[in-house]
Amino acid sequence: MNELTISLKAGDKIPLYEQIYSYIKEEIRKGVIPSGEKLPSTRALCRHLDVSRSTVELAYEQLLSEGYIEAQPYRGYFVSDIEGLCQFSGSGSTEEKRERKTQKQYRYDFTPSGVDLKSFPYNAWRKLSKECLTDDRAELFRLGCPQGEYGLRSAISSYLHQARGVNCVPDQIIVGAGNDYLLMLLCSVLGQGHKVALENPTYRQAYRLFANLSYDVHTVDMDSKGMRVDRLRASGADIAFVMPSHQYPLGTVMPIRRRIELLRWAEEEEGRYIIEDDYDSEFRYKGKPIPALQGYDASGKVIYIGTFSKSIAPAIRMSYMVLPEPVCRMYRERCGFLSSTVSKVDQMILQKFIEEGYYERHLNKTRALYKSRHDTLLSALRDVESDIRISGENAGVHLLLHFRDGRSEEELIQRAAEKGVKVYGLSEYYVDGKEKAGETVILLGYANMNEEKIRQAVKLLGEAWEKET
Amino acid sequence: MNELTISLKAGDKIPLYEQIYSYIKEEIRKGVIPSGEKLPSTRALCRHLDVSRSTVELAYEQLLSEGYIEAQPYRGYFVSDIEGLCQFSGSGSTEEKRERKTQKQYRYDFTPSGVDLKSFPYNAWRKLSKECLTDDRAELFRLGCPQGEYGLRSAISSYLHQARGVNCVPDQIIVGAGNDYLLMLLCSVLGQGHKVALENPTYRQAYRLFANLSYDVHTVDMDSKGMRVDRLRASGADIAFVMPSHQYPLGTVMPIRRRIELLRWAEEEEGRYIIEDDYDSEFRYKGKPIPALQGYDASGKVIYIGTFSKSIAPAIRMSYMVLPEPVCRMYRERCGFLSSTVSKVDQMILQKFIEEGYYERHLNKTRALYKSRHDTLLSALRDVESDIRISGENAGVHLLLHFRDGRSEEELIQRAAEKGVKVYGLSEYYVDGKEKAGETVILLGYANMNEEKIRQAVKLLGEAWEKET
Repeated sequence: MNELTISLKAGDKIPLYEQIYSYIKEEIRKGVIPSGEKLPSTRALCRHLDVSRSTVELAYEQLLSEGYIEAQPYRGYFVSDIEGLCQFSGSGSTEEKRERKTQKQYRYDFTPSGVDLKSFPYNAWRKLSKECLTDDRAELFRLGCPQGEYGLRSAISSYLHQARGVNCVPDQIIVGAGNDYLLMLLCSVLGQGHKVALENPTYRQAYRLFANLSYDVHTVDMDSKGMRVDRLRASGADIAFVMPSHQYPLGTVMPIRRRIELLRWAEEEEGRYIIEDDYDSEFRYKGKPIPALQGYDASGKVIYIGTFSKSIAPAIRMSYMVLPEPVCRMYRERCGFLSSTVSKVDQMILQKFIEEGYYERHLNKTRALYKSRHDTLLSALRDVESDIRISGENAGVHLLLHFRDGRSEEELIQRAAEKGVKVYGLSEYYVDGKEKAGETVILLGYANMNEEKIRQAVKLLGEAWEKET
Repeated sequence: MNELTISLKAGDKIPLYEQIYSYIKEEIRKGVIPSGEKLPSTRALCRHLDVSRSTVELAYEQLLSEGYIEAQPYRGYFVSDIEGLCQFSGSGSTEEKRERKTQKQYRYDFTPSGVDLKSFPYNAWRKLSKECLTDDRAELFRLGCPQGEYGLRSAISSYLHQARGVNCVPDQIIVGAGNDYLLMLLCSVLGQGHKVALENPTYRQAYRLFANLSYDVHTVDMDSKGMRVDRLRASGADIAFVMPSHQYPLGTVMPIRRRIELLRWAEEEEGRYIIEDDYDSEFRYKGKPIPALQGYDASGKVIYIGTFSKSIAPAIRMSYMVLPEPVCRMYRERCGFLSSTVSKVDQMILQKFIEEGYYERHLNKTRALYKSRHDTLLSALRDVESDIRISGENAGVHLLLHFRDGRSEEELIQRAAEKGVKVYGLSEYYVDGKEKAGETVILLGYANMNEEKIRQAVKLLGEAWEKET
């Protein structure tokens, strides 16, 4: 080939070399210039197109580096053998699909996973965030410690010691982007081949996660004190996932004796561990918070997981886990090289938030807020129907209604829905096997409903669930 | 037991009920009040201590809920059987250990993983961050979409299409807290039992990660065009992890023909995938960026991974992957329930950063900056020694020096260190098997060294590596 006539647009915003490159590339892709064909020399082409030689050279270099042409010493440039290229020319304009689930709209939603976001401390967060970004601190954008910044871990460790009775040093703490991530990381730390036992009913997200990570997952029945240790032992599991301070969804508080039994079980064999998910221990309306199981552990058996999702806001994506010394060593060996999942700026904001007392004030404020909603809900429910038993009412941000009149969960949910009120059934928290026979249990979460709405919604529930006489 | 004498401090900031609770708890733990012992009635105790009855009731309730005591109907409160409790009373004041690695200090560090943080767009980031937090938007703190916010994914998809030739819609994009996390997630999506092939030498972080997640990991030799597809086929792997646009650490650009061979290999069997890590494609100093392999994929075989760590800052922890349709479906089925790992505020800042043109300007600025450092380094090296061959100089933020004079990597690194200059050997990037015999390769990264420092450091390297005559 001696000539290549390319209509170049000189005033175009696409540089000349790129126009040449694109033209030749397209011709090669379309097969117009076949493989093996010799391209004009850069000298010939620049004269022919009336452009500078370096322009043509740049175009050829680009074609060379993408492999469309090859340079043969002393001979020139030849089109490469790119047989099959056409079929790989890209899937073209994939049509933009954007699915939006069409969901029924409810006037009142008693979601158990709600959080009151109106009380989010916007001013404090804004102020701290501004402070953190004020100086042009390069340090803030350099890759940080894989475990999370020392300052934040130190603040968390003090908080945990005072508020939750957790014994730990900052070196045992791993900060991560949410509980899901931390459980994934933990599975990498512990390695394959474990058998995990969860309470039944339980936090299904954790169950799915373990199952997904190819762990052998079992559920163990609970009694009024929490996970039954005899059943746990019989299950053959070596890891127990429990929520001793406030079981989700039942709201059970594990008494000290069961805690000790659980710790004993873990001590019986090397490699047994207890994962304590302390997800919403901040909210308790009677007495002081129940201390964490971790505080009783003298043998390095408890892996403690906590989160700021419930206590600050779900979208800030910051959780932490406290590893006992043996697991800490495994973490450093196997996963110490993995980068942190939380931005350093966010970590610094949170550290200041805790250290400067904002966190404590925020907790006290939301605790009072939730307590008031909790009291409103309880008193409104008392006015409605007398044969509903209420449980799980001392802590957390939801309670349970037990019906023994033979009506099914579906029926109760459906009737509430007809009045525009969304309520939740307990059965969805059971992993295998159904809930207790002879009883239907409905969950009501009250974190993101104000008192007025709660009263209105409960009134509607009363109408919805009224028995036909 | 009829009497419990507790010295209460009325003016204390610890509430009275808590003082009573703590006292009784400690007495039980110490064994002073034995199990089975009946506690005084609340009425008797409140009279004895001269406090209100509700104070005593609150203390007893706390003890009850923690399981230290039990209530027996019509009989009163009895101390529980908590045999073995003492040994669980916590590990006490674990000594605070804080290890700080003592590292040799270098005056000049040619780290290949550096980023220039002085050029971080502090003002823009601060401004956008302020804007995002300005209104009290509860929406910003509600749990977001697991894949990342639609707006950000949309901005990334446009950017990828224009800048990298990647064909995708926002629904195929998953935003995550760093590449390590995304690879962990991907392994969960793909499930167990895969055999992954990586280039050799490679990005060792990825190798360790796959190995850790119990994948069968292999390395496949490279030639001048990248991973050898014949060797890949022979390895029996079903997943190939490659960096076609700029291989790390060798800097190889995979030509179009090899790309097609690779895509062919993937198409030969169902379930084969190519992971394209496009980690630093933004930086190329000759011609236009090499389009991504993903753009040539018409069969849904390429999983594309990109990051803002290199192009903005390592500490912001935001990466993304583009899943082909079949993998997308697997993601939704197996991992769609996992919460996002990036805070919504950060996602929104980044979205505005891209949409309002800051990202493009920032890229152009850093590209020019790195190009200037790159040119300075090249010209400084030319003045030093004539028998060093340089490669990988067209892209990225590091280049390679090839020595053929028989001196070992250790010797070259050691001699540089004696002059206060830290350089890196290629051998640490090889996973198994050593590098080519007869050649020693040193890596020099220049992203976080200014021109003046580069000149000084290269002068020292010249002295360090001068041959004794």
